[in-house]
Amino acid sequence: MHRTLLLLLWLPALGSFFGAAAQNRNSSDGFKLVDKTGNIRKPDDYRETYQMLGAYTVLDPKGNQMHDTYASPGAAEYYRRNKKFADGTVLVKEVRGTDHAAMTTGDAHWGADIKVWFVLIKDSKGRYKNNSLWGDGWGWALFKSDAPEKQVATDYKKDCLGCHIPAKADDWIYVKGYPVLHSK
Amino acid sequence: MHRTLLLLLWLPALGSFFGAAAQNRNSSDGFKLVDKTGNIRKPDDYRETYQMLGAYTVLDPKGNQMHDTYASPGAAEYYRRNKKFADGTVLVKEVRGTDHAAMTTGDAHWGADIKVWFVLIKDSKGRYKNNSLWGDGWGWALFKSDAPEKQVATDYKKDCLGCHIPAKADDWIYVKGYPVLHSK
Repeated sequence: MHRTLLLLLWLPALGSFFGAAAQNRNSSDGFKLVDKTGNIRKPDDYRETYQMLGAYTVLDPKGNQMHDTYASPGAAEYYRRNKKFADGTVLVKEVRGTDHAAMTTGDAHWGADIKVWFVLIKDSKGRYKNNSLWGDGWGWALFKSDAPEKQVATDYKKDCLGCHIPAKADDWIYVKGYPVLHSK
Repeated sequence: MHRTLLLLLWLPALGSFFGAAAQNRNSSDGFKLVDKTGNIRKPDDYRETYQMLGAYTVLDPKGNQMHDTYASPGAAEYYRRNKKFADGTVLVKEVRGTDHAAMTTGDAHWGADIKVWFVLIKDSKGRYKNNSLWGDGWGWALFKSDAPEKQVATDYKKDCLGCHIPAKADDWIYVKGYPVLHSK
């Protein structure tokens, strides 16, 4: 066989190889954060590798908060296309205190130190039926700044779901405040 | 030459080809948004292709605002590594009105309709000395929602710089409220 032809025949295979590598970098394999029984680990590199979706500011006399939410690579693109979250999508919400200052545009508030992290992993298949942190299509986890690696929620129905009821119709996620999930 | 060896010799070249393609997707070539005399166009695909850096909420009796800021691909990674913005970095700030509602965590505010866009392009080389929208290391542009494609600022010193003075030490950018620019 002519050498050039041989190479040309190999090119699509090589393209697939590099394409697959690129796709792996962008996949939403949140289950690598989960052990066999459903215990959830917080991703340690989400600020570098995830994509910020948007922020909510919560005014509360006991202390204002900034909620910054991040999604695993490719999750936002999938959501924009399919109007739902892909199985394995990881969402991380940082709940921060706020600083503020009078600026030309008004009293500007921005996020300060992190107080807690919420981590959600999309599970379309009901994988961990015996684990009380999985249900309603998600795995639910909570980490606090005094022990950032320690998951401390025990029952998502008691510890997590209550705050998400207003977003039930949007698969429990406050998507309307996340501009990156919407093209325009 | 043995065919397998021939193929192996070609592999690094192909790797470079695919690597360069990936790098181009992540480059910060903001100057493709600029014409010869320095007129700045707003990127039309930033919500899909840029990376959100963070948000400020501005409380103002005349109407609260949510400021969502996006950076061109690769810009945040470069900043985290070098503590400065790369030449050609594009920043887009959406200034939105807000909606709000009483939630379990307090009075939650989120971004509503866009009112204006600020677009900044990092220029480390002083490229457009005769254009009054370029200076202090950036090109400055303003677009309003009633004509989203029309750049309406005329002099960055009058129209833009005043609001950025508190951030002068950070190259005029309010980096402290953008968690994606900081690793932890």
